[in-house]
Amino acid sequence: MRELTVDLGDRSYPIYIGEHLLDRFGETAVKHALPKKSPILLVSDAEVGPLYLPQASASLEAAGYTVATHTVESGEQAKRLDALGDIVTTALEAGLDRDSTIVALGGGVVGDLAGFAAASYMRGVRFVQAPTTILAHDSSVGGKVAVNHPLAKNIIGAFHQPEFVLYDTSTLRTLPPREVRSGLAEVAKHGLIMDRAFTEWVEANADRLLALDPEALAYALYVGCGVKARVVSQDEREGGLRAILNLGHTIGHALEAVAGYGELTHGEAISIGMCGSARLAVRLGHAPEDVYAATRRVLSRLGLPVALPAHFDTDAIMEAMMHDKKFRGGEMVFVLPKEIGVVDIVKGIPSSLVRDVVESLKQGESA
Amino acid sequence: MRELTVDLGDRSYPIYIGEHLLDRFGETAVKHALPKKSPILLVSDAEVGPLYLPQASASLEAAGYTVATHTVESGEQAKRLDALGDIVTTALEAGLDRDSTIVALGGGVVGDLAGFAAASYMRGVRFVQAPTTILAHDSSVGGKVAVNHPLAKNIIGAFHQPEFVLYDTSTLRTLPPREVRSGLAEVAKHGLIMDRAFTEWVEANADRLLALDPEALAYALYVGCGVKARVVSQDEREGGLRAILNLGHTIGHALEAVAGYGELTHGEAISIGMCGSARLAVRLGHAPEDVYAATRRVLSRLGLPVALPAHFDTDAIMEAMMHDKKFRGGEMVFVLPKEIGVVDIVKGIPSSLVRDVVESLKQGESA
Repeated sequence: MRELTVDLGDRSYPIYIGEHLLDRFGETAVKHALPKKSPILLVSDAEVGPLYLPQASASLEAAGYTVATHTVESGEQAKRLDALGDIVTTALEAGLDRDSTIVALGGGVVGDLAGFAAASYMRGVRFVQAPTTILAHDSSVGGKVAVNHPLAKNIIGAFHQPEFVLYDTSTLRTLPPREVRSGLAEVAKHGLIMDRAFTEWVEANADRLLALDPEALAYALYVGCGVKARVVSQDEREGGLRAILNLGHTIGHALEAVAGYGELTHGEAISIGMCGSARLAVRLGHAPEDVYAATRRVLSRLGLPVALPAHFDTDAIMEAMMHDKKFRGGEMVFVLPKEIGVVDIVKGIPSSLVRDVVESLKQGESA
Repeated sequence: MRELTVDLGDRSYPIYIGEHLLDRFGETAVKHALPKKSPILLVSDAEVGPLYLPQASASLEAAGYTVATHTVESGEQAKRLDALGDIVTTALEAGLDRDSTIVALGGGVVGDLAGFAAASYMRGVRFVQAPTTILAHDSSVGGKVAVNHPLAKNIIGAFHQPEFVLYDTSTLRTLPPREVRSGLAEVAKHGLIMDRAFTEWVEANADRLLALDPEALAYALYVGCGVKARVVSQDEREGGLRAILNLGHTIGHALEAVAGYGELTHGEAISIGMCGSARLAVRLGHAPEDVYAATRRVLSRLGLPVALPAHFDTDAIMEAMMHDKKFRGGEMVFVLPKEIGVVDIVKGIPSSLVRDVVESLKQGESA
């Protein structure tokens, strides 16, 4: 088992990464002094719940905990205010009190929804993240939790740090290949923003990662979570630095907004977005030309798209970017690579140049 | 204008109390550096909004702010999750960003709802309380914000401190007499828990308070807010001490839960509840007998009920108390007076004794 710490003073917490950790949930809960006389609520979704709720519950019950469960529909549409209300119904019926813990057992959607439930139930109870996807190695660290609103994603939420993150890598074996690739896009992102050597390692070990080799996967998640933890430790509430985690996300979110349902995964969208950021950086003279090629190479090796399908409407993408909550006062702000493993937050980028770059992403290879 | 400070380190904030302060909203916003390029959202209800939204908006606009407004239905039923969603709709349509401010202009319901919107919109934006009731002198200080769930009140919320509290006492003149009395119950509570001299002053000046004499009212709100601020400063997140603010609330909430709609105001319910706590304290030998008489006297002078109407079902009241979120692990915990102006948190009180006291409250005078 690997372990690392998110350093946030008296809100610091560990991330445990390894095989079969769900079987050790009970002992980990005891180690972290989760109170036994207050019920624990496990929240999962319709896909993950049937696979792992029994295992997690059994481990906690064997350690002497009372466990209740709540299962939400799978997919992004579960992140609704009324789904939060449903979790609270279950929590009240199960007798959860201020000393209770709410556990997110699943991917990023479950983490965000159950995390916001933990942040707001009785104005905040203990929270544990038990991610079951690769993508969630990103979202499960840092305490950002939220639900969506019909007009905007993640717009209603909180910062609520977990007691610990229990990352059972055995659960990743049931992931569909496309979800594996999607998750690896965030792994690659963590290298691209802060760790050149790790980026090269990902490129060299892409096949092992895609084959879910346990050792390679655990190492990649350890380094990926470590980058995220370092950034969050320095900027818990997104005052500045934390924005670098949005590399590829400005274009990526816009692509997700205009794409048809199921057309692009989050990882695919940010993969194209990271290629866009690299191109933008090269065009602005912010990064040397080979940064674009290197970005493209690692993402390609992971089986991720690096060009924009031609049928995407550039105007619609630009429109979606203008609505992104990351824009303040109409200015366009981007996270841009300076070199591989180093990024900057660059303000005042002309939208005409962004438009050119988005359009050029349809042409693939040439920058 | 009177001013006092809630001392919470880097989250400290002032409470301004005085006549015609809404006309100085703009200058106060500037003084507190609320950003001008981000829209401000004023949230009010159907009763208060038509009276004071134009005045508050005009002052802010004259100071150079862009103002949007949102009006919710009046009454407790506005504190719903979907009403939070509606505020977020308005906020998004008005272009509120991370530097925006959400203002609660109204009573406790508006404060709780708009406050939770401010706590969760984009994971937290600036918040200002502009209370327009006497009751809200209590809820507007301390940062507790929440909405209700069909199964429990205030169960989904946050701790979110305002930038400042702007308490325009001119707005209190439009309060119906029953609302005035209800609010004065919380004023009396602040004396009973922490300030014997103030309790005596309230008793001696009850007629001036009931007549809304501006000077008496401003003084009472200043002292009442001051007691609340002192308690909150010592225990922001309700770890222990803050529970003393619940004097009379355990029985009071149960009465509200079992009463028919509109039968008891919050102040009326806690007035009876505070009499119950005093009786309980005397029965347990925790307080001398005259504490019950003195409690009863100040509340009577304010025109508040001090006996339980005979048709209330004692079993239903006991049942409602058992469901109160303040109970941990089934134990009955009460805030009990030791003398006037001094209270303790007392655990392990037998429910049979509580039942006797509730029943005896129907008999009025004799303890």
